[in-house]
Amino acid sequence: MCRARALLLWKAWIKVGRLVMKFGGTSVADVERIRNVARHVAREVDAGHQVAVVVSAMSGTTDRLVGWVNEAAATGGSNLAKLDWREYDSVVASGEQITSGLLAIVLQAMGYKARSWAGWQVPMKTSDAHGSARILEVECDQMIANFEQGEVAVMAGFQGISEDSRITTLGRGGSDTSAVALAAALDARCDIYTDVDGVYTTDPRIEPKARKASRISYEEMLELASLGAKVLQTRSVELAMVYKVPLQVRSSFESPDSPNQNGEDGSGPGTLVCDEENIVEQQVVSGIAYSRDEAKISVRRVKDKPGVSAAIFGPLAAANVSVDMIVQNVSADGETANITFTVANKDIDRAIAVLEDAKKDIGFAEIEASPGVAKISVIGIGMRSHAGVASRMFKTLADKSINIQAITTSEIKISVLIDEAYTELAVRALHSAYGLDKA
Amino acid sequence: MCRARALLLWKAWIKVGRLVMKFGGTSVADVERIRNVARHVAREVDAGHQVAVVVSAMSGTTDRLVGWVNEAAATGGSNLAKLDWREYDSVVASGEQITSGLLAIVLQAMGYKARSWAGWQVPMKTSDAHGSARILEVECDQMIANFEQGEVAVMAGFQGISEDSRITTLGRGGSDTSAVALAAALDARCDIYTDVDGVYTTDPRIEPKARKASRISYEEMLELASLGAKVLQTRSVELAMVYKVPLQVRSSFESPDSPNQNGEDGSGPGTLVCDEENIVEQQVVSGIAYSRDEAKISVRRVKDKPGVSAAIFGPLAAANVSVDMIVQNVSADGETANITFTVANKDIDRAIAVLEDAKKDIGFAEIEASPGVAKISVIGIGMRSHAGVASRMFKTLADKSINIQAITTSEIKISVLIDEAYTELAVRALHSAYGLDKA
Repeated sequence: MCRARALLLWKAWIKVGRLVMKFGGTSVADVERIRNVARHVAREVDAGHQVAVVVSAMSGTTDRLVGWVNEAAATGGSNLAKLDWREYDSVVASGEQITSGLLAIVLQAMGYKARSWAGWQVPMKTSDAHGSARILEVECDQMIANFEQGEVAVMAGFQGISEDSRITTLGRGGSDTSAVALAAALDARCDIYTDVDGVYTTDPRIEPKARKASRISYEEMLELASLGAKVLQTRSVELAMVYKVPLQVRSSFESPDSPNQNGEDGSGPGTLVCDEENIVEQQVVSGIAYSRDEAKISVRRVKDKPGVSAAIFGPLAAANVSVDMIVQNVSADGETANITFTVANKDIDRAIAVLEDAKKDIGFAEIEASPGVAKISVIGIGMRSHAGVASRMFKTLADKSINIQAITTSEIKISVLIDEAYTELAVRALHSAYGLDKA
Repeated sequence: MCRARALLLWKAWIKVGRLVMKFGGTSVADVERIRNVARHVAREVDAGHQVAVVVSAMSGTTDRLVGWVNEAAATGGSNLAKLDWREYDSVVASGEQITSGLLAIVLQAMGYKARSWAGWQVPMKTSDAHGSARILEVECDQMIANFEQGEVAVMAGFQGISEDSRITTLGRGGSDTSAVALAAALDARCDIYTDVDGVYTTDPRIEPKARKASRISYEEMLELASLGAKVLQTRSVELAMVYKVPLQVRSSFESPDSPNQNGEDGSGPGTLVCDEENIVEQQVVSGIAYSRDEAKISVRRVKDKPGVSAAIFGPLAAANVSVDMIVQNVSADGETANITFTVANKDIDRAIAVLEDAKKDIGFAEIEASPGVAKISVIGIGMRSHAGVASRMFKTLADKSINIQAITTSEIKISVLIDEAYTELAVRALHSAYGLDKA
């Protein structure tokens, strides 16, 4: 795509139009912070946008509500497994209802027209999978009609309504998903305000030379999100990708009145997550991610027969052990296989117990478990068309004498397991090797 | 009415049927207390009743929510008068939503079928007078269908939904009214669980010989409620009277398993508020009420012309000064009138300032204000048909040398103003004079 067209698209994006602004729990932790949010909203309204704001519960609120639910569910030694998630949803969704009303009141006090929308009022129609419902349809005709009257919509995030008129919630972090779904329905851009000012090439706490990306593709953001960069909920990125919602990650703690808030210089105040064709100068590698506190478990000399993976991972799933990276290869004898996977360090004992219990079904020779490994990932949409990305990774780590314990790849990502002690060294070396230090 | 028929009615009342149980904020203050509530509910379900529970917000919750609303509304020095009560209602109603979900969860953990109902889910249809909405219609077909499946309904009190699908609230104490309205719609009896175990002949803190009334008429309860006996909200009693809902006031802190909880001995565990024809042995006087911290204001030598009352009480209402007892009589000169009324002690300076401001419109000679008066009231439905009730009151007070400063009467009530210092003496003397000490 030529640069001229990209600039044209960018200009279309920053033009006045509909805008969804999403603020998380720490951004609305008390009334003073809600006022700060309102100033961000006022800036966009003053710039001529039709604005819908999506808010989370005030930080701490959801935890308190969940605590009460758990206490209630434990009555008479009752099992939490019997919890009615419809009731959980009704209790927990009240948190976002409170914030949306308070923000509407603050906006009104500042002289703006505003009203709150509970999920059931929009309505944000979802499946009946309470506690982790999926959004089916967002009917926002009334909200759009109210935009025409100059009204700001303040929607309670994280919640919806099922077909039988019960309150549903979308699961933790679901407000990101609410915001993207609403933006898709409104044909709006979606700004996610968070406690960081964008997506970085790596964690700045490890590599001070990390740079904020001005743009990143949906695919890259998906990999980053699922690799543990806690900037956006994975589902919200998937949804944005499907509906091509331009998504911007930006800081809610920057002054609402600081220059460059409207991004007129073309770079924007945060990181724009968008279709790759809107990224003019694609990097081969756009970021280095890491995830610590993992443990590696190898199941050795498993009979190489159909169903053996199910025999291993079925019982682990049943025991609620979350498995991340899985590698299988042929063992030295050529007849059996070794299966290696990672779990969270805290789950290592439980995982081993589950496997020992299932030994007869699986039929393995031995289990080897090593806590304290880290997963280092190199992500970049450009690696689809560039050779040598993987070999550069391996060479860089080898130059630092870092041993690679396992490798997995996707189309736009290479992940390796290494000794946790080398995490920072590996991240910095890779960040430099792919030229991410340079502007 | 003959005693036999009354007993028959009573038996009909205690027979198995539909039952609304209402619990206030202190009864559901934490999960442990919600469990206690659930045990009361379980007892009634086990007895074969179809039960709907109406709950308030956990005590402290409403105050916290209202505090946030006020803080939000004060943004930028904005005037609270501009507060959008639709948003107030949406924020504040979340408190009852939380409690209803938690109680449903506890009941389920105890093995009972239960579900929560937010006001908008029932729906409890109300006017759009946000903050103090009036109930228009309760549609409870689905709730009744669920009763048939053995399900307990747990309804969030205090709230409803307006015609344009906004959340409304009924005003402070509105959960009593929710409960009575639901009971009327369900054709159910209504038990109001509170921190006292019934309605007493007077305040037991003043007169230890005070006895719990087993029955009291709606009319008497209305007078008691409006005289400051904070057992029931006035509107709930009005509603119960109109729809002839049998209302029982009983204690939520008594053990759910103590004997006599089902009232099979015919007296019931609390006080039944009912139609007077269901009260077998009517007392002439059923109770002595008092209200302290009042101030008496006399406006002297007001021109006795049409509109003068409006000229006095209009400005006071506009200044939000609540006026209670009003007495008007001709002054000594025979041409002008003296108007005496009471306000709360705390409002006395404001009331005088308002009257001085309006002096030209009213045209009075002087204002006399005395703080520190008490209102003592004798209430009894029997006084409609018995002479001498008032004269006994006056004589009893005279015998104790208590001066009466003003008198008002209704069909079933006589109220007098006296010096606050004599409150206890007056209450005890009257309690004894009307024979209320004796069982």
